[in-house]
Amino acid sequence: MSDYTPRPEDKFSFGLWTVGWQGVDVFGPASRPLLDPVEATYTLAELGASAVTFHDDDLVPEDSKREETLERFAKALADTGLGVEMVTTNLFGHPVFKEGAFTANNREVRRYAVAKTLRNIDLAASLGAHTFVLWGGREGAEHGAGKNVRAALDRYAESLNLLCAYVKEQGYDIRFALEPKPNEPRGDILLPTIGHALALISELDDPSMVGLNPEVGHEEMAGLNFAQGIAQALWHDKLFHVDLNGQHGPRFDQDLRFGAGNLRGAFWTVDALEGSGTGNRYDGYLHFDFKPPRAEAMDGVWESARACMRNYLILRDKVRAFRADPDVAAALAAAEVATLNEPTLGDGESLADLRAESHDIEALAGRSVGMEALDQLAMEHLLGVR
Amino acid sequence: MSDYTPRPEDKFSFGLWTVGWQGVDVFGPASRPLLDPVEATYTLAELGASAVTFHDDDLVPEDSKREETLERFAKALADTGLGVEMVTTNLFGHPVFKEGAFTANNREVRRYAVAKTLRNIDLAASLGAHTFVLWGGREGAEHGAGKNVRAALDRYAESLNLLCAYVKEQGYDIRFALEPKPNEPRGDILLPTIGHALALISELDDPSMVGLNPEVGHEEMAGLNFAQGIAQALWHDKLFHVDLNGQHGPRFDQDLRFGAGNLRGAFWTVDALEGSGTGNRYDGYLHFDFKPPRAEAMDGVWESARACMRNYLILRDKVRAFRADPDVAAALAAAEVATLNEPTLGDGESLADLRAESHDIEALAGRSVGMEALDQLAMEHLLGVR
Amino acid sequence: MSDYTPRPEDKFSFGLWTVGWQGVDVFGPASRPLLDPVEATYTLAELGASAVTFHDDDLVPEDSKREETLERFAKALADTGLGVEMVTTNLFGHPVFKEGAFTANNREVRRYAVAKTLRNIDLAASLGAHTFVLWGGREGAEHGAGKNVRAALDRYAESLNLLCAYVKEQGYDIRFALEPKPNEPRGDILLPTIGHALALISELDDPSMVGLNPEVGHEEMAGLNFAQGIAQALWHDKLFHVDLNGQHGPRFDQDLRFGAGNLRGAFWTVDALEGSGTGNRYDGYLHFDFKPPRAEAMDGVWESARACMRNYLILRDKVRAFRADPDVAAALAAAEVATLNEPTLGDGESLADLRAESHDIEALAGRSVGMEALDQLAMEHLLGVR
Amino acid sequence: MSDYTPRPEDKFSFGLWTVGWQGVDVFGPASRPLLDPVEATYTLAELGASAVTFHDDDLVPEDSKREETLERFAKALADTGLGVEMVTTNLFGHPVFKEGAFTANNREVRRYAVAKTLRNIDLAASLGAHTFVLWGGREGAEHGAGKNVRAALDRYAESLNLLCAYVKEQGYDIRFALEPKPNEPRGDILLPTIGHALALISELDDPSMVGLNPEVGHEEMAGLNFAQGIAQALWHDKLFHVDLNGQHGPRFDQDLRFGAGNLRGAFWTVDALEGSGTGNRYDGYLHFDFKPPRAEAMDGVWESARACMRNYLILRDKVRAFRADPDVAAALAAAEVATLNEPTLGDGESLADLRAESHDIEALAGRSVGMEALDQLAMEHLLGVR
Repeated sequence: MSDYTPRPEDKFSFGLWTVGWQGVDVFGPASRPLLDPVEATYTLAELGASAVTFHDDDLVPEDSKREETLERFAKALADTGLGVEMVTTNLFGHPVFKEGAFTANNREVRRYAVAKTLRNIDLAASLGAHTFVLWGGREGAEHGAGKNVRAALDRYAESLNLLCAYVKEQGYDIRFALEPKPNEPRGDILLPTIGHALALISELDDPSMVGLNPEVGHEEMAGLNFAQGIAQALWHDKLFHVDLNGQHGPRFDQDLRFGAGNLRGAFWTVDALEGSGTGNRYDGYLHFDFKPPRAEAMDGVWESARACMRNYLILRDKVRAFRADPDVAAALAAAEVATLNEPTLGDGESLADLRAESHDIEALAGRSVGMEALDQLAMEHLLGVR
Repeated sequence: MSDYTPRPEDKFSFGLWTVGWQGVDVFGPASRPLLDPVEATYTLAELGASAVTFHDDDLVPEDSKREETLERFAKALADTGLGVEMVTTNLFGHPVFKEGAFTANNREVRRYAVAKTLRNIDLAASLGAHTFVLWGGREGAEHGAGKNVRAALDRYAESLNLLCAYVKEQGYDIRFALEPKPNEPRGDILLPTIGHALALISELDDPSMVGLNPEVGHEEMAGLNFAQGIAQALWHDKLFHVDLNGQHGPRFDQDLRFGAGNLRGAFWTVDALEGSGTGNRYDGYLHFDFKPPRAEAMDGVWESARACMRNYLILRDKVRAFRADPDVAAALAAAEVATLNEPTLGDGESLADLRAESHDIEALAGRSVGMEALDQLAMEHLLGVR
Repeated sequence: MSDYTPRPEDKFSFGLWTVGWQGVDVFGPASRPLLDPVEATYTLAELGASAVTFHDDDLVPEDSKREETLERFAKALADTGLGVEMVTTNLFGHPVFKEGAFTANNREVRRYAVAKTLRNIDLAASLGAHTFVLWGGREGAEHGAGKNVRAALDRYAESLNLLCAYVKEQGYDIRFALEPKPNEPRGDILLPTIGHALALISELDDPSMVGLNPEVGHEEMAGLNFAQGIAQALWHDKLFHVDLNGQHGPRFDQDLRFGAGNLRGAFWTVDALEGSGTGNRYDGYLHFDFKPPRAEAMDGVWESARACMRNYLILRDKVRAFRADPDVAAALAAAEVATLNEPTLGDGESLADLRAESHDIEALAGRSVGMEALDQLAMEHLLGVR
Repeated sequence: MSDYTPRPEDKFSFGLWTVGWQGVDVFGPASRPLLDPVEATYTLAELGASAVTFHDDDLVPEDSKREETLERFAKALADTGLGVEMVTTNLFGHPVFKEGAFTANNREVRRYAVAKTLRNIDLAASLGAHTFVLWGGREGAEHGAGKNVRAALDRYAESLNLLCAYVKEQGYDIRFALEPKPNEPRGDILLPTIGHALALISELDDPSMVGLNPEVGHEEMAGLNFAQGIAQALWHDKLFHVDLNGQHGPRFDQDLRFGAGNLRGAFWTVDALEGSGTGNRYDGYLHFDFKPPRAEAMDGVWESARACMRNYLILRDKVRAFRADPDVAAALAAAEVATLNEPTLGDGESLADLRAESHDIEALAGRSVGMEALDQLAMEHLLGVR
C-alpha cells in the first residue's frame, strides 16, 4: 500500500481563503477565529502543499499592514520553499461590487474593478505567479431587464482585452484563467459553464492569453460532468488551472473537500487531468478550492486540507492501476474505444466513397458495446478490490 | 385586447414530430394513433404556422412509400403555402446509433451517420430549407472510460467539417445549427450547453457555416437561464435557429408547450429574441419543439400546438408594451442599464488614467441599483395589470 | 382594474429579518446598514402589513437593551395596530448550533437549545403570538457517519414533546409549525420536505399541537410542486403557517420576493391557499420570508416588500376570476375534475361488484382528458388576456 | 480478498422487467430482443439471485398464453429454488392509465385499476409473495387545475383501504409497499418522496399493512439523501422493501446499476440497510430495480445485473470493516455520535432544571466536532486503502 504523502512534484496548492474561511454564511456568523494567512502558509507547507494562492483581500485586508504582511509572507515562502503559483483579485466581496465588477452597470465601479485588478497583477508578478484567476461571482443578475447581456459581454471582453494588453506591456509572464459558475451568489452568473467561457475567449483580441480555471463543484451545480468538461477545455488547449473540491449536484455551492461528494466523478476527474485516456495531460498545479464545513474547529480544517491531497493521491494511484490493467486494455478494445481515434473518412477517401458504402444496420444495431463491463472494472479499481 | 392570431410574417414553425408524437415513453407504449405527417401539415397551416420541419424518419419512415409520401407532402406545401424552413436527420432513434452517431466508437456507424446526413441534406436542399439542425442526442456516455472525449470532439469536428464541405461543394444555401442538451437519453451528452457548442464551432474549418439551435428546456435542464444563453449566442452571431418549449428546471425533458413551465423565463426569452433590450434581434423562424402530454388525445395535441403560438404572441405584445412604457424607461435609467454600453475605458484614455482615478468606494457601495423596481414593472406587464 | 392595496383582512405578515437582512452571504459582508427592527415595524405597517414576526435574535440581539427594545417594539405595535402573529427562535445562527440544536450530538447544546426555545415561547405568549415556528436549519449533516438518524429523530421528537408539554403546562394558546428544508446550510437537513415533517409529527405525543410552516423555495429546491405539497398538508390539517417567496428550482436558497421565480407555481400556490379547487382553505397569515437581493439599497428593500403583497393580491384576483369563469367550469367538467370526488367504490357496492365489471379499455385509453385546454385557460387568466 | 459471490442468504432479488427492458425510450425504439421472462429467471438464478419479482404485464402480457407461461414459470422457480418475494401490478403502462390509475379523474379507470390490482394480489398470494408494491407512476399532473389534490389523496387512501380490506378478507399474508417518485413520467407525481408517502400511510384505516418501497434514484432525483430517507422509514417501522439502483442527482430517471451514480451514497445506503450505525436493520430482500443502458447488448445486460449484487457485497464488506475499525470507534466517540442516544432531558429532570442550567456557550461554539476526520475514515474504507 502506498503512503500517499504529498511531495513537491505533486504540485498541490491551496487558496489561503480555504483554510482561512471562518464559516460565515447566510445563516450565521463566523464559527472559527481569524487565521493568520502567514501562519496558514507554514501549516500548508507542513501538510505537503507546494504552493499557495490568494485573493488580495485574503492576504492584505488592511492597507496599514500591507508592507509588513507582505514581508512576513515573503519570509514564509522562503522558509518553506512554497511558491505563489496563482493570484486572484476579489471582485465580489466588497459591496461596491454588489451589482457586478467588469460588467456592473455603473461605469465607475467597472473602472475601479479594472484598476484593482491591475494593482493585483503587479503583486502577482512580483510574487512570481504565472496564473491570474478571474472569478466573476457578482457578474450577473437576478432578473431579466437589469442587465443587457450583449453590452455585458462587450464589457467583459473589453476588460479582458485591457488586462491582456497591460500584461504584455509590462512584459509579465502571466496568463489569465476564467472561472465559470452558473449561479450563487447571483441568480444567474454570466459565463455560467466551461463552454460559455471558452466561447467568450474565442472572441478576445488575444485568445492565447486567456484560458480557464474550472471548478468541480461549479460544473456539477449545473448537473454537468466535470471530467468531460475539462477534457473539452484540454481539447481547446485552455485548461490553464483547475479548482478541485466536492459537490452533491444542483444545490448550493458546497465546496466539500476533494473526493467528498461525487467520488466516481473525482476518479474520472483525476483520469482526465492525468490525460490517461486521452493523451491530453494537464501539467499545472492541482489547486484545492474548498471550504472546511462550518461545524469544524481548526482540527477539522487541517484534516480536510490534508484529505484533499491524500484523496487525490489515492485516486491517482487507482487511475494508474486501472489504465495499466490488462483486463482493462481488453475491455477498452472490446468497447472499441481506441477506434474513435481513427478519422471517419480515411486518407484519400471521398464522401462519394462513403455514400456508396452499404452497412448491415441491424447487425451494427445489435453489436455489443461493452461499456458496463468496462465501467465495472473502473468501479472495482476505485473500490480497491482488484 | 389583441386577437393573437398567428400570421405568416410571425414565422412560426413546427416539427412534424411534435404533434406526431404518439406518447411512447420509458414507462408505456403509444397512447395516440399514428398521425399522417401530410395531414399534420394541413392542420398546422390552418392553425397559423408558416412552415414545418421534420426529421427524415418522421416524414418518410418506410422507404417503399418514400416517393409517394414526398409527392403528397409537396402538394400539401403547395396547397397551404407552408415552407420547409429546416430539416434535420434522426441520428438517435435507430439502435444503430445507440452508442452515438458522429462520435460512436464504431467507425462503420460513424460512416453511416455521415452518409445518412448527406442524403438528408440533399432532401433539405430540394425542399428549399436553409437550416439543417443536428441534435446529437446519443453522442455521449453513461460512464467515464467508454468515451475518449478528445477523440470524440475530433470526430465531431471532422463530421461537421465534412458536412460543410459537402454543402459548399454542392452549392447549397444551407447552414448548420447544433442543438445542445446536457443529458437524456445519454447520461452525459457531448456539447451539453450553448456555450460548449459555441466553443466547438470556433475550432471548425469554416465557423461561419455552423451556429446553434438552442432549446429552452435543454438549457433549463442544466438550471441555466435561456434568455441569457441565447443573448450570448446572438452576441456571437450564432443564433441560427431556436427551439421553443417549456420545462420545470433540472429533471427529465418535459417538452411542454411554450409558456408552460418557466413563464417568466418565456417572457425574457421573447424579449431576447426580439432584441428589445440588446438591439440583437433574431430574425429566423420561431420553431416549436414540444410534446403534447401523453395523457392528451388529439384534441389536446392541437390545443397545445395552438397555444404555443398564442402564448408567443401574447408575450410579444407584453414585451413590446414593457419596452414602450415611459415608467420602464425611467426605471432602466435609474438602474443605469444603458450605461453598460459605454466602454469602461474611454476613447483616448489610458490604463494609467484609470489607475490614477480615485473613487468614493463606500458611496458607490451604498448606491441604489433599482433592479427590483424594474423587475416588478416587468412582472406587472407580464401579468397584464399595467 | 383593482388597486391591489393590502388591507388588514388580507393578513399579510413579514419576518423582521427579511427587510432587515443586511446582505451578508458566503461571498461578502453586509451591503446595507443595520435596520432598526422597531423602525421596520412602522414601515411595514405603512406598506400594508397586518402583522410582523421575528426570531428572538432579530429583535433583541443585545441583552443589555432587551427591555428597552421590547418597550419600543410594544409601542410600535400599539401605534400601528400590527400584531405579532408568529415568533420563532434562532437555533442556527450562533456557532454553538453549528452541528445542530435539538439534534446536536453534544447534549449540552441540545439542552441549551431547548432552554432557549422555552424562553422565547414565553416571549411569544407575552406578545400574543399563536404560532411558534421551528426551522432546524443546522439539524443535519454533510456526511453519513456523523449523525445517527434514528437517534436524531428520537431527539427531535423528544424536544417537540417537551415543548408541547411546556405550552400545555403554561396554558399558552400556541401551536408549533415545523419548517422543512432539504439542504443549505447543512449538506442534508433532517425533515427535508413537507412529507418528512408530516411523518414525524404523526409519531409525537400530541400530534394536534404541531403542524407545518412550509416555504415555497424550500420545496422547490427539491424540485417539488409547492401547491401540491401544501394541498397535502391541508389534507392532513397541518398547514399551520406558510412562508411565501420565490425560487428558481434546485440551486441555492434564493428567497426572492413572492411571484419572482416560478410565477405559474405562485398562481397555483395562491389557488391552493384559497382552497379554490379543493375547498380546503388556509385561513392563517400570509407570511413573506424573502431576502431583498444583496445588490439593492433600502429603496429596493421596501420595493420588494411592497411587491410581495401586491403580487399576492394580483394573483388572488386572477385565481378568483379563473374559478368564476364559465369557460373554466366547462373545461373542468370536460376534464372530469369533480368526478374525482366520487368514491371509487360506491355506497353499498362490494369489491366483487367491481371485479365483475367489464370496461372498454381501449375506448377509455383513447378518451380526451382536456388538461391542456384547461391549463391554457389558467395561463390566459394569469397573463390577463381574458 | 473476499470472493463476493452472492448466496441465497444475501436475499438478492431482481425485477424481471430490469433485465427484460428492451431499451425503448422517448427517443428511440427497442435496441434489444424480447427476453423470455422464464429464461431470465434461470439466468438470474445462475448469477446468484435468490428471488424474482414482476409486474403482471412482464410475466403474462398475452392472456392467451397466461396458463402456459405460469406453468413454465412455476417450473423455473422449482428448478432454481428461486422464490417470488414481491409482485406488483402495472398501473402506468397501458394508455388507459395515461391520466392516473387510483387517482384518475375518470371513475371507470379507477375501478379498473382497483380490479386489476385485486387480480394480481391473488396471483401474488398464489406464488407465495408477501410484499405487494404499488408504484403510482401516472398518479399526478403536468399542471395545476386538472387534479384536485385533496380528492386525489382521498381516492388514493380509499384504494389502499380497499386493497388492505381485501387482503384481510382473503387471509393473505401480504403487506403493501408504496414507491414514491417526484416526477417522470408525470410532471409532478403524488406522494413524491418517502416523507409524503409515510404521511399518507398514517391516515389509512390500518397503517400497519402499508409501508414503503423507496428507490435510490427516485429520492436522489429530488436531491435527497437516500440513506437518511430509509433511516427515517426504518424509524417509522415502514421500510417494507427497497429498490436499489444508481442515479446522478436531479435529472431523468437513470436506473443505473447499484453503485454507479452516487457511490458514496451507496456506501451509506448499505450502512443504513445493515443498521450498522442505528441498530435499525432492514431484513427484507435487496431488490434491484435498474435498467441496463440501452446501448448494451445482452452481454451488458447480464454484466450489469451481476455487478449490482457484486457491488452490494463489496460495499457490505467495507461497511462492516468500517464499523469494526477501532480508529472509527475512536472517531465516533470524538464526534459524540453515541451521545445522541441519550435523552436531552434525563430521567427525573424537569424543564425547570434545564432552564436553570448555565452553559459556556462560547466554549461549546468552539468545540471540535470531528466530522471530517470521521468521514475521511469512511472514505478510506470505501476506497480500500485501510
